[in-house]
Amino acid sequence: MLRYGQDKPNVITIAQGEGSKATPEFITNAAFVAAKEGKTFYTPPLGIPELRSSLSNYYQRIYGFNIPDNRIFVTASGTAAVHLALASIIEDGDEVIAITPIWKNLLGAISVARGRVTEVSLTCENNQWSLDMDKLFDSVSEKTKAIMLVTPSNPTGWVMNDDEIKQIVEFARARDIWIIADEVYGRMVYNGQHAPSFLSHTNDDDKVFVVNSFSKAWSMTGWRMGWLVGPSCAEEKIRDLAIYNYMAPTSFSQFGAIAALEHGEEHLKSNLALWRRNRQAFIDTLSKYNSIQCPIPEATFYGFFKVEKEPDCFKFTKRLIDDAGVSLAPGFTFGHDFKGWMRICFAVSEEIMDEALIRLEKGISGI
Amino acid sequence: MLRYGQDKPNVITIAQGEGSKATPEFITNAAFVAAKEGKTFYTPPLGIPELRSSLSNYYQRIYGFNIPDNRIFVTASGTAAVHLALASIIEDGDEVIAITPIWKNLLGAISVARGRVTEVSLTCENNQWSLDMDKLFDSVSEKTKAIMLVTPSNPTGWVMNDDEIKQIVEFARARDIWIIADEVYGRMVYNGQHAPSFLSHTNDDDKVFVVNSFSKAWSMTGWRMGWLVGPSCAEEKIRDLAIYNYMAPTSFSQFGAIAALEHGEEHLKSNLALWRRNRQAFIDTLSKYNSIQCPIPEATFYGFFKVEKEPDCFKFTKRLIDDAGVSLAPGFTFGHDFKGWMRICFAVSEEIMDEALIRLEKGISGI
Repeated sequence: MLRYGQDKPNVITIAQGEGSKATPEFITNAAFVAAKEGKTFYTPPLGIPELRSSLSNYYQRIYGFNIPDNRIFVTASGTAAVHLALASIIEDGDEVIAITPIWKNLLGAISVARGRVTEVSLTCENNQWSLDMDKLFDSVSEKTKAIMLVTPSNPTGWVMNDDEIKQIVEFARARDIWIIADEVYGRMVYNGQHAPSFLSHTNDDDKVFVVNSFSKAWSMTGWRMGWLVGPSCAEEKIRDLAIYNYMAPTSFSQFGAIAALEHGEEHLKSNLALWRRNRQAFIDTLSKYNSIQCPIPEATFYGFFKVEKEPDCFKFTKRLIDDAGVSLAPGFTFGHDFKGWMRICFAVSEEIMDEALIRLEKGISGI
Repeated sequence: MLRYGQDKPNVITIAQGEGSKATPEFITNAAFVAAKEGKTFYTPPLGIPELRSSLSNYYQRIYGFNIPDNRIFVTASGTAAVHLALASIIEDGDEVIAITPIWKNLLGAISVARGRVTEVSLTCENNQWSLDMDKLFDSVSEKTKAIMLVTPSNPTGWVMNDDEIKQIVEFARARDIWIIADEVYGRMVYNGQHAPSFLSHTNDDDKVFVVNSFSKAWSMTGWRMGWLVGPSCAEEKIRDLAIYNYMAPTSFSQFGAIAALEHGEEHLKSNLALWRRNRQAFIDTLSKYNSIQCPIPEATFYGFFKVEKEPDCFKFTKRLIDDAGVSLAPGFTFGHDFKGWMRICFAVSEEIMDEALIRLEKGISGI
């Protein structure tokens, strides 16, 4: 659908999964200086010690907890972090429970690792997302190897709270299953400095992988830089897999990543201001319609909504492109319970956001 | 052993697998001009069209044959190219025949893809490497899914000739098995402009993957940029796997890669001059000893040799580090028939090469 929208002239695309701003110059410059200084050779497969230690400091500074360097694995993207985590634990036919709606590539990553996906969906009631813990725990079977989730959630902007995290960690510990928590949107919250993290509730030996990335918070999607936090016992396996998958992350980019961690707060703040403004415009527009279900996203740059009498998001998003000139991501790609839903991305300029909303209203009114 | 050597003071390391020169400035500059211009967003998973087309032009210009863009897949390193190729064809327990000695990570990549390795070794007679075709073909069984080889070969510098390539392609075609040919060292030859390529003898539909990389020829090991040429029918599968493995190659680095292809010949020539000089010094030194078997490498920046009465390369390379202060790569990692062998890398400065050879002689004479 993204491609369908992009190929048409005069269509505004708010279906994408990345910000609209290029990487800030101070990050690019740091990488460039490193490359000029000759940092163009292989690095250790799990990243240069300076970056691993900078990530450890970052957790201390922003989250206030202590993660030793040897639990932090720099990876060639957040996607690579997910792939390595899965590849390190999944055997043929193992089951992975995915809390949906979820970014479709995570479901794809489970399949590529030869696991089987079981979807457990969030519930939307009274315009609020919630996770039914009993439903989640009841879905765990003998074959379950891991629970995968994204918090804050792409596409809903729902944020798992500390109590829920704690319950899941304790359950997984008791049942000896893994948790793969994607916290890529952890800094993109509209209240506070960060979303609750699984790392607050896990110790060095817990079977918990936390996935993260430089892409979203620091506008570095093109850089392919991410990281994985795991138990210290996972280091050797993840290193081996990294070596055979892609050898090591890009050398000089790792210096850009250090700059992002150490000097990136202002950039993040300015991005958040734009996204907050666009989110409000989105909420103001959609809340005019009783026929639209649209929980307020507490985090991320996404909104996920449903239009009554439009049960088929594929048809509807196609019609929005053709008739209203605006392209959204259809919900069915985020899980089988969400084919009536659509995702918009509000990481665009104010002008584009406002025009997109005018077009969206036109499309909705045309029903 | 590489780590053992690196950790010791005053040890010269010629065990590595990369050149000694940093990436030339014109490549770095091209990447950073692109980054500054805002090329910091996701690219298509198989690379930007400009790079795919630049690679097609490169094959036309240097090799004289026509490979359409849709058969060229840009990957996040040569290692990633191998991994994606294997992942696209290997099912549990499939057998892959590897022509050895071979870079150990390729054997590891087969295992990670859940294939089983069968080694078929080159023969060294009269100080010349050769491939016994009958031995290779006889090793193919019902379970064989692919033949994997590196030409020019790391570690031997042996180059497969056109006739051998043709025989293997015809055999694989008849038996309906895949070929994965690593041609990463294809430009690093001491006669002519390039080594014979499998792409000279294959058509669009042949089950042949050719792996390549920017790392060695253009001093870009830290960049993690490679490419894969495959049949056009493989494009969709490789794209899917790339998406779930790492999403896409680094955006701005792809512009550096274009610069390397279009303006990199001088750099390659100057590197080759250095390697040729060091290779000669290596040959001159080792040919003084009747007790040393050392076929002349026709390509690559490696020499692979064997010292009579030193059947255990692990012990011998360790002793060379401890007693002579020079670190080499032990041969057993390149295949089970090569535990009496050692690899040196002559991609170092003249001074380091000469000193390494003095130390090596000291170590050999000390026997």
